Amino acid sequence: MKKYNTAIVGATGLVGGEMLKVLLQRDFPVNNLRLFATSRSAGRKIPVRDKKIVVEDIEKSDFAGVELALFAGGDIASEKYAYKFVEAGAIVVDNSKTFRMDPDVPLVVPEVNPEDIKLHKGIIANPNCSTIQMVVALKPVYDEAGIERVVVATYQAVSGTGKAAVREVNKQTREVLDGKDTNAEVYPHQIGFNLLPHIGSFTENGYSTEELKMVYETRKIMGDDSLRITATTVRVPVLIGHAESVNIETKKKITADRVREILKDAPGVTVCDDPFNNIYPYPAMSAHKDAVYVGRIREDISTDRGIEMFVVSDNLRKGAALNAVQILEEVIRMGII
Amino acid sequence: MKKYNTAIVGATGLVGGEMLKVLLQRDFPVNNLRLFATSRSAGRKIPVRDKKIVVEDIEKSDFAGVELALFAGGDIASEKYAYKFVEAGAIVVDNSKTFRMDPDVPLVVPEVNPEDIKLHKGIIANPNCSTIQMVVALKPVYDEAGIERVVVATYQAVSGTGKAAVREVNKQTREVLDGKDTNAEVYPHQIGFNLLPHIGSFTENGYSTEELKMVYETRKIMGDDSLRITATTVRVPVLIGHAESVNIETKKKITADRVREILKDAPGVTVCDDPFNNIYPYPAMSAHKDAVYVGRIREDISTDRGIEMFVVSDNLRKGAALNAVQILEEVIRMGII
Repeated sequence: MKKYNTAIVGATGLVGGEMLKVLLQRDFPVNNLRLFATSRSAGRKIPVRDKKIVVEDIEKSDFAGVELALFAGGDIASEKYAYKFVEAGAIVVDNSKTFRMDPDVPLVVPEVNPEDIKLHKGIIANPNCSTIQMVVALKPVYDEAGIERVVVATYQAVSGTGKAAVREVNKQTREVLDGKDTNAEVYPHQIGFNLLPHIGSFTENGYSTEELKMVYETRKIMGDDSLRITATTVRVPVLIGHAESVNIETKKKITADRVREILKDAPGVTVCDDPFNNIYPYPAMSAHKDAVYVGRIREDISTDRGIEMFVVSDNLRKGAALNAVQILEEVIRMGII
Repeated sequence: MKKYNTAIVGATGLVGGEMLKVLLQRDFPVNNLRLFATSRSAGRKIPVRDKKIVVEDIEKSDFAGVELALFAGGDIASEKYAYKFVEAGAIVVDNSKTFRMDPDVPLVVPEVNPEDIKLHKGIIANPNCSTIQMVVALKPVYDEAGIERVVVATYQAVSGTGKAAVREVNKQTREVLDGKDTNAEVYPHQIGFNLLPHIGSFTENGYSTEELKMVYETRKIMGDDSLRITATTVRVPVLIGHAESVNIETKKKITADRVREILKDAPGVTVCDDPFNNIYPYPAMSAHKDAVYVGRIREDISTDRGIEMFVVSDNLRKGAALNAVQILEEVIRMGII
């Protein structure tokens, strides 16, 4: 089997670290592996199987020879370097928001729109974490019954913000337990034992950028600009695992039993739905797992054609690193490289 | 001013303790104050201003002379003793679910349906915590624009479950911080750094009892059985303060500005809505406060006639103790006693 020179940009961050882990766990056909970060983290040695790889300073490096690159260094790194990797001959899967809505860049969740990969011009965008897990659960329902409108409220883990946020929630939580005052640095207010309806920044219409990502990215991935979606995104004091309360108005009536049936066969989904036995999805069960867990599936009693469901997944894996690696696997499978 | 012999049943619980605090803070016209609990807590001395009141064993007590009673002892205490207090001449405000849907018992939020108090036959029911804060925010919108349908997802604090749950989340949280294993006793799964889409028990249609309370209690309080509501209720690792993401489809178009305007004048509501300056409601800001905080008010981009809002309130105060005391204040103001 052919192996590929592969790079991770932002390798010292939470998502970059998870990308490395996923590449290894899935026996991704890596030839030469290169890890990049900013000068702040460059020089660090990252253990990879039985050896250590030195993190390279992206500003001082030559990218020649890289065939596949995973970008998880944030918007600025992507803006500055993604096309340089493309020029050097690589196919880039980018986890930042930079190219997601660019009409020249496919936005891909392999279970939903793998064929869009073929339209790439060097860069393929990895969607927002909360969008990915939602579309994996929505797509089978969409195909079966059509979707009129989606109302979603999220419960998003702090690891989505990064390492500093994980430190902050841990620190503040201990301070609250010890009866001490807390101090907020990463978030505008305390996150330990608290929650904030604030992810990303706010826009003129009152929605946050995270909420609008869930609207526009979902439409692009599903290839349906008529899809009506509204979202409220909330940061909760959970370390790993985003949860979503998803209300779907379908075009055709569909029963909860039928939804369970089609989701059981859906790629990437694990149905976890036996509430009488306390079986339903929750973040702690999703951590370090690949699946999008769906449960609490029921017919919406407020309408004739509606489904409620609760969708949970590890935001660092399917919400970021795993989805990006799956895109690369598709790139290889499709013979695009 | 006339003063009333007042009793609190379940005085040693979280809600009972908060009721006592609220009575004192609001200078409620108490004459003789009696505190009741089960034999397990009876005999304890509760400090009240400059003296101590001994908690009486409800099973061995005579209720004669009690004029106003606040019940927070749970369903069994209410089933067993509420009508005994009524027979002894008291007006009872009951915080359990026992009488809420009883057609002979008014279910009251003073800001919404105070007139229903007049229909009482001895017992007035205090609604469920998550319902109370929602209807306080919904009523002004309902009066102005009509409501077609509500889709709500909640973020509910562990204090809603009681003292043992607060101990459990604190214990588990410390265990997670210390890298130890956790053990779930109060909830079926870990709640520290986790969340569970499970409040109350589950019913045949897939909804939980808590979710159905939000549907049926809201209809009863608003006096509109045609109101279409669906809810997903979720327990989160927060100590005090329930949050709700509320999506409202209105009958008439209403702007976000107009909603802010009417909510600013609405009784019991504090509008907290300047997201560009990080001003929005969150649980930590609501703890030990009386208001229902409403923010993130915006026009729903998925429909022509919709409003999204985020509603937060202290579940022990407006969600329970404060609302109950306010009902008693109305009873006095209306001259019913």
